[in-house]
Amino acid sequence: MIKKALIGILCSAVVLAVGILIGHYGISSGSSAPSWMQNVTKDVDESFIEKFLSEVDTVHIQENLRELTDMPHMATTAGDEKTVQVMLKRWQDPGYGLDDAWREEYDVYLSFPNANKPNKVTVVNAEAAVLHSIREKEKAYTDDQKDPDVVQPYAAYSPPGNVKGRLVYANQGKPSDYEHLNQTLDLRGTIAITRYGGAGRGAKAINAAPYGVVGVLVYTDPLDINDGLMSDASETYPHSWYMPPSGVERGSFNRDFGDLLTPYLAAKEDTYRISPEDITGIPPIPTQPIGFEDAYVLICALGGDAAPSTWQGAFNCTYNVGGPGFSSASAFNNSDVKMDIYNYGEVKKSANVMGVIKGSVEPDRYVIYGNHRDSWVHGAIDPSSGTSVMLELTRVLGRMVKEGVWRPRRSIIFGSWGAEEFGLIGSAEYTEQYFAKLSERAIAYINVDIAVFANATLRASAMPSLESVIFKATKEVSAPGEASTSVYDAWIRHSNRTSPTHGLIPKLGYLTGAGSDYAAFVHYLGISSIDMSYTYDRSKTNARIYPAYHTAYDTFDYASKYIDPGFVGHQAVARTAGNILIRLADSLLLPFNCSDYAEILEAYLNTAVSLYQQQLQAHKISIGKLQTDWWRCYASKCNSLSFMPLKVRRINDQLMLLDRAFLDPLAFPDKYAFRHVIWTSSSAGKATFPGLADAYAKAELSGEASDWAKVHYHLSVVSQAIEGAANTLAEVI
Amino acid sequence: MIKKALIGILCSAVVLAVGILIGHYGISSGSSAPSWMQNVTKDVDESFIEKFLSEVDTVHIQENLRELTDMPHMATTAGDEKTVQVMLKRWQDPGYGLDDAWREEYDVYLSFPNANKPNKVTVVNAEAAVLHSIREKEKAYTDDQKDPDVVQPYAAYSPPGNVKGRLVYANQGKPSDYEHLNQTLDLRGTIAITRYGGAGRGAKAINAAPYGVVGVLVYTDPLDINDGLMSDASETYPHSWYMPPSGVERGSFNRDFGDLLTPYLAAKEDTYRISPEDITGIPPIPTQPIGFEDAYVLICALGGDAAPSTWQGAFNCTYNVGGPGFSSASAFNNSDVKMDIYNYGEVKKSANVMGVIKGSVEPDRYVIYGNHRDSWVHGAIDPSSGTSVMLELTRVLGRMVKEGVWRPRRSIIFGSWGAEEFGLIGSAEYTEQYFAKLSERAIAYINVDIAVFANATLRASAMPSLESVIFKATKEVSAPGEASTSVYDAWIRHSNRTSPTHGLIPKLGYLTGAGSDYAAFVHYLGISSIDMSYTYDRSKTNARIYPAYHTAYDTFDYASKYIDPGFVGHQAVARTAGNILIRLADSLLLPFNCSDYAEILEAYLNTAVSLYQQQLQAHKISIGKLQTDWWRCYASKCNSLSFMPLKVRRINDQLMLLDRAFLDPLAFPDKYAFRHVIWTSSSAGKATFPGLADAYAKAELSGEASDWAKVHYHLSVVSQAIEGAANTLAEVI
Repeated sequence: MIKKALIGILCSAVVLAVGILIGHYGISSGSSAPSWMQNVTKDVDESFIEKFLSEVDTVHIQENLRELTDMPHMATTAGDEKTVQVMLKRWQDPGYGLDDAWREEYDVYLSFPNANKPNKVTVVNAEAAVLHSIREKEKAYTDDQKDPDVVQPYAAYSPPGNVKGRLVYANQGKPSDYEHLNQTLDLRGTIAITRYGGAGRGAKAINAAPYGVVGVLVYTDPLDINDGLMSDASETYPHSWYMPPSGVERGSFNRDFGDLLTPYLAAKEDTYRISPEDITGIPPIPTQPIGFEDAYVLICALGGDAAPSTWQGAFNCTYNVGGPGFSSASAFNNSDVKMDIYNYGEVKKSANVMGVIKGSVEPDRYVIYGNHRDSWVHGAIDPSSGTSVMLELTRVLGRMVKEGVWRPRRSIIFGSWGAEEFGLIGSAEYTEQYFAKLSERAIAYINVDIAVFANATLRASAMPSLESVIFKATKEVSAPGEASTSVYDAWIRHSNRTSPTHGLIPKLGYLTGAGSDYAAFVHYLGISSIDMSYTYDRSKTNARIYPAYHTAYDTFDYASKYIDPGFVGHQAVARTAGNILIRLADSLLLPFNCSDYAEILEAYLNTAVSLYQQQLQAHKISIGKLQTDWWRCYASKCNSLSFMPLKVRRINDQLMLLDRAFLDPLAFPDKYAFRHVIWTSSSAGKATFPGLADAYAKAELSGEASDWAKVHYHLSVVSQAIEGAANTLAEVI
Repeated sequence: MIKKALIGILCSAVVLAVGILIGHYGISSGSSAPSWMQNVTKDVDESFIEKFLSEVDTVHIQENLRELTDMPHMATTAGDEKTVQVMLKRWQDPGYGLDDAWREEYDVYLSFPNANKPNKVTVVNAEAAVLHSIREKEKAYTDDQKDPDVVQPYAAYSPPGNVKGRLVYANQGKPSDYEHLNQTLDLRGTIAITRYGGAGRGAKAINAAPYGVVGVLVYTDPLDINDGLMSDASETYPHSWYMPPSGVERGSFNRDFGDLLTPYLAAKEDTYRISPEDITGIPPIPTQPIGFEDAYVLICALGGDAAPSTWQGAFNCTYNVGGPGFSSASAFNNSDVKMDIYNYGEVKKSANVMGVIKGSVEPDRYVIYGNHRDSWVHGAIDPSSGTSVMLELTRVLGRMVKEGVWRPRRSIIFGSWGAEEFGLIGSAEYTEQYFAKLSERAIAYINVDIAVFANATLRASAMPSLESVIFKATKEVSAPGEASTSVYDAWIRHSNRTSPTHGLIPKLGYLTGAGSDYAAFVHYLGISSIDMSYTYDRSKTNARIYPAYHTAYDTFDYASKYIDPGFVGHQAVARTAGNILIRLADSLLLPFNCSDYAEILEAYLNTAVSLYQQQLQAHKISIGKLQTDWWRCYASKCNSLSFMPLKVRRINDQLMLLDRAFLDPLAFPDKYAFRHVIWTSSSAGKATFPGLADAYAKAELSGEASDWAKVHYHLSVVSQAIEGAANTLAEVI
């Protein structure tokens, strides 16, 4: 049943392509039309794009970054408010501002450490003497780290509590890690130390609690971030881009995105709130992140058996699992780890800053461009690299608008989201508040959060329909520091795939997760979206992410010295994202290629057939047959150009609504706000329909009839959604 | 928080009105535009409407009805297939057919009595001797009732079973009725006889089962249908329109609409199905409807105390509640009622017949007009009166299209739904299969099921935005048999209200229930809808519904003699519905009046404030304050007419999507497919926001904090939905 719907999509894409050709023909031959018709049928102006590209400037980006990062700006702090003012001042500037800009506030539930009562982690012996204290703040190398507003490293949404127990080493805190330990150890009453990676932050504690573990520590192993390097003296920041021994990755330890007290409702003052005790998906036991210098002291003193080889990190000792507890040969013999966590939750006002350029011809169609504004500390890379790029984009475009040189066909909405670090809160609340309007009118969402992780190659993820416009833009932008190489060329060299239609092309990623503010746009609203950045050459580092991520070392100094000297990576991202933004806003016919979408869906189907067909047949579930009578290859009937403006709009609406047609608000009741049946997150790790893949994995494991019924259900859900999408693209009546 | 959003809606409506004026001005002054522009800007043609009205013909309607009702046509029977062929033949006629017509099939779960083993209800004594047998089929007065295809009266979706017990009289089978009986009687093992009315068909058994009742009988009391008359000899059909003593109302005893095995999925061959045992909302115990001649025998023999006065019906005896069981003075002393029910469920192919007239300018906007085709027996009134009207509409419009006289601006889709009597199945499956496309493109849905209950006055229910176009049409159509009186005048005389804006106007109903095929369009899709018919003068009858409803007496003979002699009521409905249909399809700007919607919302709010404000404040729930800074009275900025075609489309899209903005798929998890937060069914019986009203009623009763939290939740849901609707109507950017 899926196959026949897929054919619908493939064929419909062809019809639209024909429509596009006719559309262009109609426009060029319509030059004798009245002057307003010229406006209505105007297409994207390539010379304007060239002008835009030439004006995007590295120095402006650099100075944006300097201004945005001169103080820590964690959500709802004074530093955050200062960045609100920066955004408003820029976007309201009479010379290069937007048509309108304003602040929108939400009352959101955040979690903080207590400044007067810092979280403490210690090693204490049986007489309660403190043998070792974990460092409370990261070591200061520059004035930035000395700023009193640098927040103590903590696990946001970890509960407060005072717990004590024998230490165990639980690798990455995955279910299988605890299961492994549990085979030989009694985990009740223990504290688990885990390393980042492998499982979500909060999951490490959620997975631990059922075994009776009472507290969880998390650290970043030098193996995973520093390519094994761990010496303070010369190897790490400020001598290189690597994380210093005291560096700690902060983070939000929640599973669901958006304000946790107001699911599906915008968090306004009067809004209904669940009780904080009813929040699900946050650590049930105290949790605290620590630096690897302390983790080294703890782990290398552990007793018990040696951990499996895949659990070993970069420390120059054997990682034992714990007795539980420390080795009798260590100074910590018979000692416990004690955690005193004083985090508290508070509803605070968090601001999005919104700005618009109004569309000339179709003001009721929106291209949205956004990034969060809040950081954990100074956040030079995360998120200020993206904000600096956004401000440069709006400076160049804003000036063109103010000077009357340009006005986009469609409206452009810029969003500077608040409280992303706590769980994509600002963008999620925005999509909840404006759900109806955005569902009706949003063409696309472009997210540029961390603009530059490194400057080797572009990394982009998007709905496949946007692949072609991304490729087009990247071919027109020079790679950083390489005038004669395009961003496209550098990308295809670094990461590529072979497409049945296009041959060798750069590899575009999918937006299946919830790693940044695109999540609510993709999963909740079904808006075709793009997330992009410049990133590493993986042949040069194995770091999970750039090493200063969420630490006090993510500063202007770090960014300009180690991440993107000269800001040429930022410039390339600004040019690429801006190029795409202009094309989405100005193209007469939206630059969405449905056959590229169909190619991916067909690959998904092929994967499903090859992985699941046999078992499905055994359970009498039909994955469908090719039914030729269902073919929807409508002959194009676009002979008349009489109603051109409405015909263009009609085709564009089909394209705009394609992703919306894949939404099913009831398909994933256990995954907050995930409604897109193609891109929903999946734990099965298969490149195929996520609901089907997860249900199949569960049924295969349990063998229960009710689980096989769920497989059949998800097959029907995806089949109906694909047919809905095909209907959206097919001839309109 | 609601108030401020309401103001948004009110003000936005004003802006749209301004837009409409400017639109019309722009069009009339645009007469020098190219010829295709004339088409694009063409408004509804009043002379065409006059022509349409003059051609709607009573004789054609009469002959349609004769053809549709010449045999019983219960869903999926041979008679049903014959009506499929009638529809296809008409709609595919080269002289007066539609552009296209086709059959769409679904595999739906139906419930039937066993023709070889009829359901039996008997009175048996302790020795198992049968003292009385309930009539198995209705008494035949004409050849129609002798047709072997007349289905035995039964309760669709009642389980089979053989049960026996003492009889009790349970009034209407409401929870309060059983609760009352339970105060003095042990209901375990009893059979309850109930009368129609007060509770849903299936609810009478669902409410009974928790008390241990083992079977339920249902009958129609002459008080509720015949104005008390009950004599066969002269008072009832065939001597009058009243139900004869053996008449039985058949019906579907399910709670949820749509195919019961495929919730939210179109019931195609390969679709995932739940197991029939997992269906909820159907009778858990055997249930059977019987005629009042048998009910009389049973009830007048009951022992026990006299039932309360409000429980007494029209029989010339005192209705006792039962000992349980019969009076010792009766011939049935010490006897039980025995029910032998042999209903079975079966998945069968049910067809919708679809037809379209393609739009000329906006083919991607749909006005949908529908009625079901299936009946319980001959179904002359229900549904063939509506089908006869639909066929007359399509004959007149189809001929105009075939002759090239007319083509609507927007596409018109006609739906002849299957299996409505089993729970609105054909229309619900259609909305599930085409959810995406219909969500994107449907302007409105017009439902004319029973076209004529009687011919005294129009009865219409609709979203309030459609009030004005309904009024306009009704002013242009003559009332049946009264050339000088309009349908509007007859209506306002019969049923009216005083509007703050318009003064005295006819009273339009709301579509809060699921009584016919509008349900999925209103509640699941949020499409602005209308349901209409001609109906009684309530000063002349108290009948719940026309007396032959769902009986074997609902025949051509009955309809033409007693319901609408001369078919003038049918004609008036055809003219009114057709007039509205043409206006919705042809008007340049959609004839939706948002301020009429706002008037009703404001009334809902006022009701909520007056009923709930005090208690809400006591529970610290804010119903919101008038915040003047939120006023959205945007000054109209429609100075330029440059982009007229797109501007008109923009305003129309705002209007089309208004009701969609009220949808919340998660707000009513216990009410299948109900998503519209304004019109969802409510048991609280208050003219205010249904989720709020129901939650309030529950919280007031229980006093529990968790129930008050639900009240707050529903207040936030409706508040966010109204704000979403206001955003839909507000200036687009």
